[in-house]
Amino acid sequence: MKKYSLKNDYSEGAHPKILDAMIRTNLEQQDGYGEDDYSKKASEIIKEKLNNKEAEIHFVSGGTQANLLVLSSLLESYQSIIAADSGHISVHETGAIENTGHKINTVKTKDGKLTVEMIASVLAEHTDEHMVDPKVVFISNSTEVGSIYMKKELQELSHYCKEKGLLLYLDGARLGSALTSKKNDLTLADISELVDAFYIGGTKNGALIGEAIVLNKKELQVKFRYRMKQKGALLAKGRLIGIQFLELFKDDLYFEISEHANKMAEKLSGAIKKGGFEFMVEPVSNQIFPILPNELIEKLHEKYDFYIWEKIDDKNSAIRIITSWATKNIVTEVFIEELEKYVK
Amino acid sequence: MKKYSLKNDYSEGAHPKILDAMIRTNLEQQDGYGEDDYSKKASEIIKEKLNNKEAEIHFVSGGTQANLLVLSSLLESYQSIIAADSGHISVHETGAIENTGHKINTVKTKDGKLTVEMIASVLAEHTDEHMVDPKVVFISNSTEVGSIYMKKELQELSHYCKEKGLLLYLDGARLGSALTSKKNDLTLADISELVDAFYIGGTKNGALIGEAIVLNKKELQVKFRYRMKQKGALLAKGRLIGIQFLELFKDDLYFEISEHANKMAEKLSGAIKKGGFEFMVEPVSNQIFPILPNELIEKLHEKYDFYIWEKIDDKNSAIRIITSWATKNIVTEVFIEELEKYVK
Amino acid sequence: MKKYSLKNDYSEGAHPKILDAMIRTNLEQQDGYGEDDYSKKASEIIKEKLNNKEAEIHFVSGGTQANLLVLSSLLESYQSIIAADSGHISVHETGAIENTGHKINTVKTKDGKLTVEMIASVLAEHTDEHMVDPKVVFISNSTEVGSIYMKKELQELSHYCKEKGLLLYLDGARLGSALTSKKNDLTLADISELVDAFYIGGTKNGALIGEAIVLNKKELQVKFRYRMKQKGALLAKGRLIGIQFLELFKDDLYFEISEHANKMAEKLSGAIKKGGFEFMVEPVSNQIFPILPNELIEKLHEKYDFYIWEKIDDKNSAIRIITSWATKNIVTEVFIEELEKYVK
Amino acid sequence: MKKYSLKNDYSEGAHPKILDAMIRTNLEQQDGYGEDDYSKKASEIIKEKLNNKEAEIHFVSGGTQANLLVLSSLLESYQSIIAADSGHISVHETGAIENTGHKINTVKTKDGKLTVEMIASVLAEHTDEHMVDPKVVFISNSTEVGSIYMKKELQELSHYCKEKGLLLYLDGARLGSALTSKKNDLTLADISELVDAFYIGGTKNGALIGEAIVLNKKELQVKFRYRMKQKGALLAKGRLIGIQFLELFKDDLYFEISEHANKMAEKLSGAIKKGGFEFMVEPVSNQIFPILPNELIEKLHEKYDFYIWEKIDDKNSAIRIITSWATKNIVTEVFIEELEKYVK
Repeated sequence: MKKYSLKNDYSEGAHPKILDAMIRTNLEQQDGYGEDDYSKKASEIIKEKLNNKEAEIHFVSGGTQANLLVLSSLLESYQSIIAADSGHISVHETGAIENTGHKINTVKTKDGKLTVEMIASVLAEHTDEHMVDPKVVFISNSTEVGSIYMKKELQELSHYCKEKGLLLYLDGARLGSALTSKKNDLTLADISELVDAFYIGGTKNGALIGEAIVLNKKELQVKFRYRMKQKGALLAKGRLIGIQFLELFKDDLYFEISEHANKMAEKLSGAIKKGGFEFMVEPVSNQIFPILPNELIEKLHEKYDFYIWEKIDDKNSAIRIITSWATKNIVTEVFIEELEKYVK
Repeated sequence: MKKYSLKNDYSEGAHPKILDAMIRTNLEQQDGYGEDDYSKKASEIIKEKLNNKEAEIHFVSGGTQANLLVLSSLLESYQSIIAADSGHISVHETGAIENTGHKINTVKTKDGKLTVEMIASVLAEHTDEHMVDPKVVFISNSTEVGSIYMKKELQELSHYCKEKGLLLYLDGARLGSALTSKKNDLTLADISELVDAFYIGGTKNGALIGEAIVLNKKELQVKFRYRMKQKGALLAKGRLIGIQFLELFKDDLYFEISEHANKMAEKLSGAIKKGGFEFMVEPVSNQIFPILPNELIEKLHEKYDFYIWEKIDDKNSAIRIITSWATKNIVTEVFIEELEKYVK
Repeated sequence: MKKYSLKNDYSEGAHPKILDAMIRTNLEQQDGYGEDDYSKKASEIIKEKLNNKEAEIHFVSGGTQANLLVLSSLLESYQSIIAADSGHISVHETGAIENTGHKINTVKTKDGKLTVEMIASVLAEHTDEHMVDPKVVFISNSTEVGSIYMKKELQELSHYCKEKGLLLYLDGARLGSALTSKKNDLTLADISELVDAFYIGGTKNGALIGEAIVLNKKELQVKFRYRMKQKGALLAKGRLIGIQFLELFKDDLYFEISEHANKMAEKLSGAIKKGGFEFMVEPVSNQIFPILPNELIEKLHEKYDFYIWEKIDDKNSAIRIITSWATKNIVTEVFIEELEKYVK
Repeated sequence: MKKYSLKNDYSEGAHPKILDAMIRTNLEQQDGYGEDDYSKKASEIIKEKLNNKEAEIHFVSGGTQANLLVLSSLLESYQSIIAADSGHISVHETGAIENTGHKINTVKTKDGKLTVEMIASVLAEHTDEHMVDPKVVFISNSTEVGSIYMKKELQELSHYCKEKGLLLYLDGARLGSALTSKKNDLTLADISELVDAFYIGGTKNGALIGEAIVLNKKELQVKFRYRMKQKGALLAKGRLIGIQFLELFKDDLYFEISEHANKMAEKLSGAIKKGGFEFMVEPVSNQIFPILPNELIEKLHEKYDFYIWEKIDDKNSAIRIITSWATKNIVTEVFIEELEKYVK
């Protein structure tokens, strides 16, 4: 029997409404390279939600592509990026950023989140032309360990960056989960106001493929389509992503389904807490990192697929569980039963 | 009224069988990053058609991405690519190849096809370390002007490249159309035998997205997935392309639909010839370049969308017409009627 | 017996006055990385000669380094350079420019010189984001075939570039020879006014090593030292180049010795003309390209080293002869005797 | 009065014997681009000292250039370098390595030296294609904090690298000082046997300019001159460096003068120890890092120029003092007097 996967939020295809829209529009002739009606409409709707008419939206096929494309466009050759050492670009993109020519200055964090102090410490170390010139601050929301930024925290980062002439970029691969977290107090419009560029992740929240890059300011938008084409990111059938983002945003399906993912995670973490277990990082989004006895982990691994994240001590490890728009209620219930059996 | 587009072969979505397969498999849980069952099966089937078990298949989202990814992987930093000056990489990829660090040595051609003599002339000019070291020969089949390589021509190129230590790469964005041309005498297996690497175009032949890169030899395959990830080409939901190529190749749908595209083009070019008009390049595939009076072009432009390719003289221009898997018979018939009206 | 080399202008070491200055200052302690007193003084003196206080001067070790450093600093990743196909960057720098990520759009020329029409033809072909965006015009003075730009020609290029938003860059590897040509009507100050950036070549005009990059405008100067360091161009003992350029420019030694080189070339070309021979390009600087009978070439090759540049017909070839600050009068006299013997 | 600089080992020009050789050979005609007699002879002599006829020697103008050139030539695009976080490439080369496309995986060290355990920990973290593939181990000898590798340590690193398929590269900017340290038990020939590539630093040990790159194995040498030219590292007057390295190695001047530098450092550190002060890192080469009271540092700063390296506590700081081939005995004596005055 195949295990049920709680490894990630991209194990299934697309939300059914998205497939419906694709079928509905399939034989219409549309212009290529993102100049189709659907990409345009999706872009307009997203800009409304951002409350930022000046923004420019571009659709690309994946998160690493979005990151390397935007970050390299923000930097002169000698400039670097400040990121958490757990940041996706720091570890899990096979040196994609360095391959565009730029150093990443990493800082250690407890919960995957950057603070003004951390950024300041990097700036203090970089004083002259023998060192890189830190220019962009990279954050993720939710972060790679499931934590989220509060409005106050993002404001502090934003103000500091403006003061220091830095640019703030947000990797929103799991932005849906962050913005529908019970703890969250940020809106899409807040984000558009506080960061210079970011992307809204589709792949990990119900789309078949695709991320929506948001460039908030005119000066960052110059000839961005040239950059996309050059990096192999301009899709001939751009409609493929336009249709999906239109479907995700026209009636807020995006938030509805990420809220579902969060609820599934919450049910699991509630039961885990009740079982007396702790978490590596406080669970607030669709990624949770409970610390469980190895014995229990082994038991759960018989039926579920998930990553063992970190050895905690000889008897316990942290695991990573991810829920998604497609996670079924019944799955969480059965998982919880297993857990309760063990606890007794 | 919207014009009917004959501008390109990516105006519509996907072949209905592809959409069906996507719906059918949508809620299955699959591994990410191209390690899903469908990508694996598609890869196996393609390797059978290539009659080359040693080949490695990788799926990416577009042609520019395929080109920049494979070509940069074949070259040392100081090595260059020899290509026709009409080659896609020479003009229409926004310097994507140069952006990976490599020069393209271009040669003028009549019909978009390279010959041994052209390659030899580039080699003769490059003699020492003050110049680049030409290493890869880039060809397209069909070419950017619709011509195709005959088996003998490809064999000559292949033998010359082996003799000179060059690598031969084929851009197969429209390989379906080339291999189902009436004039064609090549098979997929021939190509796999004669070139070092190539890609089989999906986007321009019925897929929603995707190209299948074929690396024919072990030594070109080393850690290719690292390169894909680094360039943002490894899709989280790799199933999206795997499912499509499985559908296209399991029952030769790929060839069936490109044959349709060719037939539609043939009907058009037959009528154009009958009308007494000539072609910029002899029409043999789904791209045709008739030379028409400007007056007629204007008339056709009222109902059809296509590119005016080149001014021929004060009264005539070459236009580019492209047919596809989705081009309807009735459209060609109406087009031909218009033409006949004008000729009378 | 070793042949006398007329192959290039970098066969000898440095002008004796330069060596004297190096010995004189050898044991002084100076700051590193170009912040020594000599580099500063040399920079001040050159800026005076340029009549441009706003200019910034940077010293680097060679011409390819100067070109790749400045050109890459002027361009966004998707932008390209327009150059003559005989331009040094087009052929003789092993793809150094492409290695920084940029395409060169080459145009054929008769005499190595670009015109407004040539540039306009490149611009006309580059219309959208599927193609590179031409941004910098690269010229050399004197050119790679010994020709020079007249003031009117440079003004036309300069005005056109301003009008079109292009940047104009001049490779001055042999600027001394150009500016002391009998035909020349340009000054260093004219050049500084008409181009955006250029370099004054030292290596080919009496220095042991070194070129002086001139960045004429504030906006091109931002953190240029960061770029130098990153490309390995910031020398720890920057004094080495500063001392040389101070020596070359404080009393116009630079022009004095390039004038000598030109005179030696003039003597040779005068005798060649008198002998009834023609030139591939009209000789006006220290590089001359006479067309001589192969028989005579063979004879001369017994005593002199030079390049055979191009086959003209079955009996004649063009050769390249280069004179320098170190070319002795007696050498030209003996060469002329040989020639005269043959002509009789 | 100008302070006496103990900031670095490149404050003066060149050793007088080097200048003598340059004057002696100045007017000889020599081939360009490192194909002169002197570069060839210097290369032969160095290969004898290495006891490695298979090695290839190339001369370049500086250390950052040597590092970026060799390291990028050893790596595929997705491969990375393991280095100490105090490594020159990690901090002080303005992202030169990343600018060639590669990530550096840094590890914390106490004394600037890597161990097998540190390398193993990086390898353990890099397991699949979502992460870079560590391939080269970068070490410096002497290190950036003045420590040196013992033969046993280098052997361990070398064996481990061979076992794991890693390449070992040594930055020898201050190799002279390392190999003439009292503590040293390595020879040039040992190094050539134990590492895959390294460079012998000239700039910081008596040369006016120049480093000698050593490529120890045939497979690393392929078309290296193409790489040099492409990066702007092939000097037209290559003789300039050839003459210097010939002078430095023909009678072991290189070791003689670095031994002098070490002796000067030893005198200073002896007196500092005698004064009861400690060191940040045990002093063994020409870079020493004594920890002194801020009051004393201020006093010394009146007459000497040096870097304050690190705050130790409220009253004490570590400073960096560097001696060189040009440091005069009398300077160290006066320095020691000042010190003794303070201690009393």
